[in-house]
Amino acid sequence: QLLELVVSHFQPKVLAGRKLLITAGPTYEAIDPVRGITNRSSGKMGFAIARAAAEAGADVTLVAGPVHLPTPQGVRRIDVMSARDMLDAVLPLAASNDVFVATAAVADWRPAQAADHKIKKNAAPGEAQVPHLALAENPDILATIAALPHPPLCVGFAAESQDLVKHAREKRQRKNVPLIVGNLGPATFGQDDNTLVLVDARGERELSRADKLTLARELVRDIAQRLTTYPA
Amino acid sequence: QLLELVVSHFQPKVLAGRKLLITAGPTYEAIDPVRGITNRSSGKMGFAIARAAAEAGADVTLVAGPVHLPTPQGVRRIDVMSARDMLDAVLPLAASNDVFVATAAVADWRPAQAADHKIKKNAAPGEAQVPHLALAENPDILATIAALPHPPLCVGFAAESQDLVKHAREKRQRKNVPLIVGNLGPATFGQDDNTLVLVDARGERELSRADKLTLARELVRDIAQRLTTYPA
Repeated sequence: QLLELVVSHFQPKVLAGRKLLITAGPTYEAIDPVRGITNRSSGKMGFAIARAAAEAGADVTLVAGPVHLPTPQGVRRIDVMSARDMLDAVLPLAASNDVFVATAAVADWRPAQAADHKIKKNAAPGEAQVPHLALAENPDILATIAALPHPPLCVGFAAESQDLVKHAREKRQRKNVPLIVGNLGPATFGQDDNTLVLVDARGERELSRADKLTLARELVRDIAQRLTTYPA
Repeated sequence: QLLELVVSHFQPKVLAGRKLLITAGPTYEAIDPVRGITNRSSGKMGFAIARAAAEAGADVTLVAGPVHLPTPQGVRRIDVMSARDMLDAVLPLAASNDVFVATAAVADWRPAQAADHKIKKNAAPGEAQVPHLALAENPDILATIAALPHPPLCVGFAAESQDLVKHAREKRQRKNVPLIVGNLGPATFGQDDNTLVLVDARGERELSRADKLTLARELVRDIAQRLTTYPA
């Protein structure tokens, strides 16, 4: 415990004077006042990166979906529910940050219309609820930030259940960001360990399996290195 | 803390020799390996009832959906994800229990087909994912248990955002159970306080606003009283 505090304290201050904005956790898209669509992201990887960045001297703002995690020391936290809430929180802050790390597992879709009252299972005859949910596409937070006139250094995450590197490469091009960090989502959600693969314009680099804080510190060092030549 | 332990210890043993089976929390219905439909139930009310029943001397089995709560002392816990998992856990245990308390906010519907791999947002041209989710009805756990040849005393919960007593009465008749406990779901999800209304064949009784453990103890006393004349 004490050792851990000392280790935290003596992390190299590679992000001193830098501002980092990070999203973490799932989003929750309301179907009605009770139900919603979410995903199995625990937020642990994002919270570990927020912590590692704060240890490295950065001014960190963490925009978190609904998770059950304590705020890392020295980190400013903003809690949100839906993807649109998250974009509303992130957008006004993005331009004044040096780095934007999008670890949140943002819902791609939301119910097209959230009901004001709980949808009844047994509706009266003639008004039966069709068991079918119309969806609308959510804003793409990472692509929106990356398309700003003077974007921060954008780092995306790809959680995939298969073909990780292929999907990460495609995602990097589609979102037009310098770095995508791939992880095998379903295998790591909620776990304390992870394996990451960093995909940039030059190729891939795998960070070998470790606890999320160790990986977060490696990623922070990588980001600090990239900042020295950003914008190119 | 110590006082609380003493208070717990000296609760009247009104359920001594009785077996109580209880469900709590939300269920999680997978859309694909990453996404799912869930609801905002925290499980706190159900966990409080499990604790109060154990304090009252009952042998308690708690079947819990995905929640972030510690298991109350002396309670046997079975963790499940989906409504069908929950039914699978509950069904073989129901007949050997004296009481079944269904506090879980069980999903009424699940995606008709859970995808084996993460559904891609940007599918290749010609195979675009239609933003639309086909749903299938979940089993009704409470009604299934209540319809057993020799059912335990069944207690249902109704979380409604409006017309609470009306909905609770209808639910009691539809599920054919002696007691439905109504609460204003969206207003109480995740809260430590609650207001309950007990709806049975004779009418309603409101338990005034209190912390969930206090309400749970009142409910346990009410259930113990009903057991003395059950089966009628």
